[in-house]
Formats: sequence, structure tokens, C-alpha cells
Amino acid sequence: MQEKIQRIKAPQLVNRVVTAEEAATWIEDGMTLGLSGFTRAGDAKAVPTALVNRAEAGERFKVNVYTGASLGSNIDKMFAEAGIVNKRLPFQAEPVMRNKINTGEHFFVDQHLSHTSELLRAGAIDSIDYAILEAIMVTEDGLLIPSTSIGNSQAFAEFADNIIIEINTAQPVELEGIHDLYSPNQQGDREPIPLTQPNQRIGTMGIPLDMDKVKGIVFTHQLDSPSTIVPPDEETQMIANHLLNFLQEEVKAGRLTESLMPLQSGIGSVANAVLHGMIDSEFHDLVVYSEVLQDAVFDLIDAGKVNFASACSLTLSEEKMKQVFGEFEKYREKLILRPQEISNHPEIIRRLGLIAINTALEFDIYGNVNSTHVSGTKMMNGIGGSGDFARNSRLGIFVTKSIAKDGDISSIVPYVSHVDHTEHDVDVVVTEQGYADLRGLAPRERVPLIIENCAHPMYREQLWEYYNEALERGGQTPHVLEKAFSWHISFKEHGTMKMPLKAQI
Amino acid sequence: MQEKIQRIKAPQLVNRVVTAEEAATWIEDGMTLGLSGFTRAGDAKAVPTALVNRAEAGERFKVNVYTGASLGSNIDKMFAEAGIVNKRLPFQAEPVMRNKINTGEHFFVDQHLSHTSELLRAGAIDSIDYAILEAIMVTEDGLLIPSTSIGNSQAFAEFADNIIIEINTAQPVELEGIHDLYSPNQQGDREPIPLTQPNQRIGTMGIPLDMDKVKGIVFTHQLDSPSTIVPPDEETQMIANHLLNFLQEEVKAGRLTESLMPLQSGIGSVANAVLHGMIDSEFHDLVVYSEVLQDAVFDLIDAGKVNFASACSLTLSEEKMKQVFGEFEKYREKLILRPQEISNHPEIIRRLGLIAINTALEFDIYGNVNSTHVSGTKMMNGIGGSGDFARNSRLGIFVTKSIAKDGDISSIVPYVSHVDHTEHDVDVVVTEQGYADLRGLAPRERVPLIIENCAHPMYREQLWEYYNEALERGGQTPHVLEKAFSWHISFKEHGTMKMPLKAQI
Repeated sequence: MQEKIQRIKAPQLVNRVVTAEEAATWIEDGMTLGLSGFTRAGDAKAVPTALVNRAEAGERFKVNVYTGASLGSNIDKMFAEAGIVNKRLPFQAEPVMRNKINTGEHFFVDQHLSHTSELLRAGAIDSIDYAILEAIMVTEDGLLIPSTSIGNSQAFAEFADNIIIEINTAQPVELEGIHDLYSPNQQGDREPIPLTQPNQRIGTMGIPLDMDKVKGIVFTHQLDSPSTIVPPDEETQMIANHLLNFLQEEVKAGRLTESLMPLQSGIGSVANAVLHGMIDSEFHDLVVYSEVLQDAVFDLIDAGKVNFASACSLTLSEEKMKQVFGEFEKYREKLILRPQEISNHPEIIRRLGLIAINTALEFDIYGNVNSTHVSGTKMMNGIGGSGDFARNSRLGIFVTKSIAKDGDISSIVPYVSHVDHTEHDVDVVVTEQGYADLRGLAPRERVPLIIENCAHPMYREQLWEYYNEALERGGQTPHVLEKAFSWHISFKEHGTMKMPLKAQI
Repeated sequence: MQEKIQRIKAPQLVNRVVTAEEAATWIEDGMTLGLSGFTRAGDAKAVPTALVNRAEAGERFKVNVYTGASLGSNIDKMFAEAGIVNKRLPFQAEPVMRNKINTGEHFFVDQHLSHTSELLRAGAIDSIDYAILEAIMVTEDGLLIPSTSIGNSQAFAEFADNIIIEINTAQPVELEGIHDLYSPNQQGDREPIPLTQPNQRIGTMGIPLDMDKVKGIVFTHQLDSPSTIVPPDEETQMIANHLLNFLQEEVKAGRLTESLMPLQSGIGSVANAVLHGMIDSEFHDLVVYSEVLQDAVFDLIDAGKVNFASACSLTLSEEKMKQVFGEFEKYREKLILRPQEISNHPEIIRRLGLIAINTALEFDIYGNVNSTHVSGTKMMNGIGGSGDFARNSRLGIFVTKSIAKDGDISSIVPYVSHVDHTEHDVDVVVTEQGYADLRGLAPRERVPLIIENCAHPMYREQLWEYYNEALERGGQTPHVLEKAFSWHISFKEHGTMKMPLKAQI
């Protein structure tokens, strides 16, 4: 206990230590919780679990749950199974919860990840009763030092009525010093965010706490859920190669240097493969400005390719976690974690001129992208930061395999069944077939590139058939509305998007 | 001539005066032109007309045409009729051109208005051979003083190979001093844009010219095409009243003060009616930060309601133009014109916390908005600045009448036929029926508000029928894909979206 108490350096907080069970009793039906956590990293673990235990013991209540992004530690799963969620925002990625969202058992508000803090600040969404925030310590002058993610924790601490801190002694104390906390003022009374380079510090090393709001401190000792990165398969590797090839062509054209521009990449195996592909490339002195740092970023640092990486969370595999935290001094000077409001802020993304690489579920012949809804209706995870990045980046790139389900689904369709990113925000699309550079092209100019470079050969003729029929009707964006979703309907009814030519429904 | 020459104060440019006809001969087939002009204001008039004359005399050539936004002076009409356009961007609003776009006779790239300068700077679109820019004068130290709009003129001057200046002696010289020119550096080498208040000057009074690029100066004497504002009809007035009512409720809830936040409003009669409605309201000390200043803003200044107005163009009716320029000293200290990159910049819009009011063609039961495409295919005008503003504003508001064509079209549909703004970016929708405040609501929560508050009563039951059937299929965003566009298809086939219940196609 002595060692634990040393993590609370602010003397007035020492006597606020409680058990997770006690803290959980403070939470009442109808309250709104703000939980730390972003892509399985730095999530509050003990109090949410104790809250679930109350439900499992028979209590009936529901709460709204705000987070940074997805949680690990099975929190979303347990919350969903216990049926204690009224509304969840701004992102999740958990199968049980996803199912409950899609059956309508609880509400999910799918938000741009840079927007949640702003909505809280403006009083435009329900205010937070309890912020429950993981930390590695509280400093003498009352700064909460977050752990492996920052996410929305600063805004939650600032705007919640009460704060519960979970000091997680399993998280490496070495993390102290890599956080940079900055919170914009109210709109209308706000200075420019002074960040002009990804490695620049603009704030404090921790979250300034209003001591009066700290209701309790709980000790925990539990590592983050490790990320589970699927190694690249052949198609994933081909997508990465095409994307690297596109970037090489941009260098040749003089639009980029071999140091590119700061890189953002979504989570997942394609992003990882792209970054890994850079290890053996001619690119050098790279910088990352992203939401999440995955294993590949550390491999690139080790390879001397990446000079600096800024994000709002560290989400590593079990093995990588051990390695990185085992020799953290190697990485300390090359890392900053920021609030997601800053990692994803349009002001910064546009100023720095990012290259943003995100995953699409499907895109259409005009370059509109669906990132979230399977068959237009069922939520997968959420839009996450993809909108923040694609709209404001220098290069908004979307990647996906051209087919799924052994070819019964084409990821390139006549009309996406749900629109998350409009053609205005999509610069380049890449599949294992190739890439289409859509910049400066009108819709009709985009179609041949997308079909011939990106669609799977087994669907090209079918796409041309749709487009040619649409062309007869004319328009800036030709469509045959009665057949626009025929591919999705065919999949639902016949198990495949493949249709006999001249017989599209 | 003596008086005219005095408008060229830079001595090294005095001998570059040419006729519009001569300047027009420099333009060759395949070139890209950057024309000044934003919403009928400050457009280059003489050289484009002389270029059309070349085509009418039998020459065959095509050019790409970049502008700020829509042009007046019949330029787009003449260009379209002469068939000399290969590609047009980023916006237009002219019936003949619109028709040629929709038949595919020339290409139209529909862009966020803040993006064009950035794409030029990054070399991501064809570079400009000739910038043709209207001015009221060139100063001794080589600043081009624009006229009634700035639009993209600064970027065109900076990135074009050659510049032709049209000094328009019909434009009031009193405009000198109201422009504030600022151009961000290349991405990666860029400071924050220092603007923190709408009335702040951050740049120069004119566009710094590279003298070597100024190929010719042409004198013109022709007023801008006046705006033609339709007076509000009963529905328009009701939309304005509901919107004012919403803002009043926000004040009561403590989320806004009676000075609101800086106002942006799109062009058109609803925007004008909303602004006029503020004259007799309790709101005071208002500030405008918009793209275009229309008549109503000057009425609000006269009424002592608006303290300051910033935009990138002045588009006035004939009568208002006379009045405003007849007593310009009254307004001078209350106006700034900026480049559209600054008036529409996400960094500034988010920092200032704008209230953005834009027009929808249609929106759906989940709050997705179509601003551009009639029946999903035919371009109306373009997305304009609506994406810049809606995504980044504090309050993104869209307005439309609930029905069109005597009720045969419902502007509220199950699924918009084209998506310009996703549900993530749409805070409030308003029709003459009422408003729906969508902030913080999941898709399923949005539906009842939109149907009951905004849809026309004659379509409510039909919308409920669609939604209830969709609900049986489940999902975050329930849909019946095979019926999603049935309303648009019914209109096309039967001339009305009204369908017998239980018989939606």
C-alpha cells in the first residue's frame, strides 16, 4: 500500500482512496459517465467492472457512456451484456455491444472523434456526472498523469461534476512526461492552437484537476488489453505496395519529398502493412501525427525511419508492449500523447498537411465512402477519426480489399449503401488491384479509374453495365436510382452481388 | 484615359495597358484560367467576354475555368453557350452551364470552397496559365486592390504563370481599405492563422503582385450583376421564425447569449428572411462571419443590430448597391472582405464557433442532407461553402421548405438521393413546419423529431410507414434498401412522391 500511496503526491487527495465497489455505488440510474480509454488503451477498468457487478447482482439502472473511442478490458462487452447502457458515444468496436446497437437495445451516437469535447464544452450533449479516469499518478501540484491514452479524458475532467481516478500500478510509470495536455477555451474567446510541428509541446504534462471534484481514488493493477494485429495476407500486402507506389509517384512529380508529410493511419492490418512497407523504402525522416500508435510505428522508430510520433493512444500487441516498456528510454524523446481533440483537430490536420490513410467498408464508382454501416443499416464500429482526417488532410486516402466473402461482395459498388465521406473528401482509393487518384476529377472522370484500377476484374463488366445505363440518363453524377442498391439487395436475397449481365435487378 | 491611368499607381505597369481583345488572344486551347468573382461580385468581365467573341468568330478551343464561386455578367452563360469550357470548378449557379454539366458536355468539379486554394498550393490540380482578376486599382507598391469580392483571387495571382488585371472604373474606389489579404504558407511550414475575432485584420490591403507575371492591364467600366432576391413568401417567413425561435430557446438554455455567435448564412431568400427577422428581435451586438454579404446585413447594420461583418464578397441588389456605395463611409469601419480560404477556413470557423445557416434541397429521416443533386443525379449549383461551415461550426443548421411542386415533392425523404452532409455534421434542420434539434441524438432518436416537426403533414404517415418497416429489419440506421429511393422513383414515374399507403414501390 505504501508504494501505491506514493502515486498520490497531492497531499489533499491521499485520504480519498476507496474501493472500486464503493466508488461504483455512487453511480445512479440515469447518470452520464465519461470513461478514459481510446482503442483499448488506458481505459478505466475497476469501477466500470464493479458497476457491472451491481447489475449482475440484480440492480436495474442505465447510464450514458462517453469514452475516447473503443475500450478494452471487456468493458463494452460487460456493459452491453448487463444491459446497463442507455446511450453510448462516440465510438465502439465490440461485437456484443454492436449487436445491441443494431437491435436498438441501446442508442449509439456515432461522432467525429474531434467533436465530442467541443459538444461538451458548448453544453450541446448531456453533461457528465462522473468522469472515471485511469492514471499512473497524481502529481504534487494536482496534475493527473494519464496512462497509455488520453482520448477525451481532459474534457471529461474539466466538464464532469465528479471525478473518480483509477491509479493503475500495472501501467509503466515511465510514461510520465510523454503527455501534452491542452484544452482550447470556449469558442469566441479562443487563441489559435499554437502547434505547428508534430513534436511540439504546447501544454502541461498532466490534466489539471479541480481537487473539489475528485470524489475518490481507486487502485488497480491490470494491463491494457493487447491489440491483436492480424499479419498481412497477400491482398493486404498488395494494397500496401500500391499505396507506397502512389507515394513514390508523388515524390517523382515533386508534390512530396522523401520525408512525405506527417502520417496518420487508422487501426488495422492494412495500416500496419503500409507502415511496415516503409521500412525497406527510400522514405526517410518520417513523422507520424495520428490517433493511435500501433506496433509498426515502433518498428519504424527502431529502423531509424520515423523521427517522431504524436497520437492520443498507444495500442500495442502483448509482445510489443513488453519490449517498448522494457526499454522506454529509447522512445521517450520521440513520443507525445495528446488529447484526441488535438490529435484530430481540423486546425492542426490542415496546417500540418497530413497524409491520412483510413479503411473503407465499401466505396462507389464516384468515390463516396462507407466506413461504418454493413449493407447501409448495421453499425460496424463508427466513423472514428476518419472524417476529421479525410476532410482536412493534404491527402485523404481510403483502402479496402476489392472483394469480400470469397467474391460474393464487391467493395466497389454503384452507390454506397451509407455515406460517411463524400466524393469531396476522398482523394485516393486503393485496393489490392491498384489505386485511383481522384484529385481534381469530376464524377464522370472518376468512374473509369475506379472501375479499371480498383474494382475486382470479376465485377468490372457489371459496374460498366450499371454506369453505361446511368450515363444514358445523364447528370453530373449519373445513376439509375431503381438499381442503385441492387447489388446489396442481390447479396441479401441471393448471397452474392454477382448478377447475370443485362439482369441487374 | 488620364483618370483611368491614375488607377495604376505602380509605375512599371503603366505601359502594360492593352485592350480586352488583345489580352484574349494570349489564351490558348487547353489552358487553365483563374477568374476573379464570387456570387456575381467582382468577376472579370471584359477579357472573358472577348474570349467568347473569339469562339463566336469561329475559333475552336477549350479552357479550364477556375473561379471563386458563381459569376455574374453572364460569363458562365456565354462560356457554356460558346462551348469553350473543358472543366469548371469549384462552383457555378447558371442554368445554361448547369445543363451542359448535366449532359456531360463539360466537366464540373464540385469542391468545398475552402479547398481550391489548398489544392493549387499543393499542385494537386492543373496549374493556372492566366489569372484574370478584377481590381479597382494597383497601388504604388504593387498591391492589386480587388473590387467587390476576393474569392480565390489571391491564390490565383500567387500560383498563375501570368496575370491579366481588369481595372473596373465602375466599381467604387471607396472599396479601397476594406480588403484583408492573407495567404497561408505551404503545409508543414505554416503558422496558425492569427485571426481570433471577425473584425481583426491579419494581412495586407491588397494582393501582392509579382510584377513580372502581369502580362496586361485592361480597363473596364461595368457594374456587377445585381442580386435578385425574391421577397420572402409565407413559408420562407415561417422557416425564419422557427429558426429565430430555436435561437431564442438556446439563449434561454444558457447555451448562447443575446449576441449569439458569429453568423454565417448562405445566399437566398430564407437566409435573407432570417437575418431580416433579427431586426425586430431581442438579439443585439451581432457579428457576421460569412462568405457573402447580402442586402439584409446592411439593413441590420443600419438598424444597429450588426456591429461588424466579414465575408469574401458583397452581393447586393441594384437598389442596395446604390445606397451602400452612396454612403460608404457609414459602413467602411464595419466591413472586411477576405479570401474565401480564410472566410471558409475550418480553423477559423471552429475557433470562432459560428452559427451556420445553409439551404438543403432535401434531407432524410436521419438528418443526412442533399444540397446539390436533383433526384440524386442532376447538379443544381454545387456544395459551395456549406461543407466548410456545417462540419466546423458550433451550430450547423439546414433549412428548406417541407414540400415543393405543390406538394408532389417532399423535401423530407427516407433516404436522400445524394449525400453532401452526413448526419454527423447536421445539428438542426428547419422547415416551415418547425425545427428538429438533432444534437446528441442517435439515428433512431432523430426520426420522430424530423417527421413530426419538419415533414409536411401530408407526408408524415408515409414516412412513418417506411420507418416502421425499416425498424423491423433493425440496424443503427434502419432502412429498406429496395424502397429507399422509391419516393424519387415515384416522382419520376408518376409525377408525385405521394403513394398509397402499404403500396410504396
